[in-house]
Amino acid sequence: MVKIMATGTFDLLHMGHIYYLKEAKKLGDKLVVVVARDSTVRKLKHEPVTPEEMRIGIVRELKMVDEAVLGYEDDMYAVVKEIKPDIIALGYDQIHDEKKIENELKKRNLDAQVVRLPKYTGMEDLNGTRRIIGKIISAYEFQKSMEKLEEK
Amino acid sequence: MVKIMATGTFDLLHMGHIYYLKEAKKLGDKLVVVVARDSTVRKLKHEPVTPEEMRIGIVRELKMVDEAVLGYEDDMYAVVKEIKPDIIALGYDQIHDEKKIENELKKRNLDAQVVRLPKYTGMEDLNGTRRIIGKIISAYEFQKSMEKLEEK
Repeated sequence: MVKIMATGTFDLLHMGHIYYLKEAKKLGDKLVVVVARDSTVRKLKHEPVTPEEMRIGIVRELKMVDEAVLGYEDDMYAVVKEIKPDIIALGYDQIHDEKKIENELKKRNLDAQVVRLPKYTGMEDLNGTRRIIGKIISAYEFQKSMEKLEEK
Repeated sequence: MVKIMATGTFDLLHMGHIYYLKEAKKLGDKLVVVVARDSTVRKLKHEPVTPEEMRIGIVRELKMVDEAVLGYEDDMYAVVKEIKPDIIALGYDQIHDEKKIENELKKRNLDAQVVRLPKYTGMEDLNGTRRIIGKIISAYEFQKSMEKLEEK
C-alpha cells in the first residue's frame, strides 16, 4: 500500500485544492491530509478566515481523502514521522524546496519521495483563497459606494 | 433503494452544509444534490461569491454525495420530476413550506415525502456563509483602520 501525505491550510475550499488532493491521491492508495493549525497559519501567512475545526471538518468529508489530521505547531517533520508516508505531495505553489525536504527526511531516517504536483489549469475564477476574499471585498466596497450615492 | 434529494447554493462551504448533507444521506441510500444556478441565486438571494461550476465541483467531491446536478432556472418541480426522489430533505432554514411542496408534488403526480432536517448545533463559528463573509469584511475594515493610523 502506497501512502501519500498532502498538506495545506484549506481555508475557503476552492477548485485548486480539489485538484491538488485528487492529483495527490492518484500517486498511491491512501491519502492522509495534514491540515495546518490556526497558530501555524497565523505565523506563516495571516489570520485564517475559518478555524481549524472547520477546515479539517470539510477536508475529512472529501471523497479522495482517507484521513485528515491537524499539523504540529513547530516541527513539520514530527507529523511525517507519525504518518510515515511513502510519498509527500507538494502543491505547485507551496514554498518548500524538494531537495531540502528530502535531505531533512534522510537526516531523520525517514524514507519518503517528494513529488511536486502541477498547477490547476481550470478556470482562474475557480482557484484561490485570495481571489475569493478579493471578490467579497470588492462586492462590499461596491455596495458601500452605492449607499453613499443614495445618501446624496 | 431510497433516493433522497437535497438542495442549496453551497456558496463558501461550512459545517452547517456538511451537517445538512450528512443528515439527508441518513434518510436513505442515494443522495442527489441540486446546486442552485447563479441566475437563481441572484434572483432569490444575492450575487453568489463563487460560481456554479465551483459550487457543484466541490459538492460533487463530498463523501455523502452520490450525485450533484445544477438546478433549473425557473421551475423547481422540473428537477424533482427528473430526479424522482423518495424523500426531499429540507434544511432547517430553507424557506419552503412542507405542506405547500407536498401539495404541489401531488398536483404533478409526484410522490415524495418532504422531511425538514434539524439545525446544526455545533459551534456557531463553523456555520453560515454570511458569517464567513462578515469575518472577511471585519478583517478588511480592521486592516484599513490600521493603515489609516499608520499614515497619521
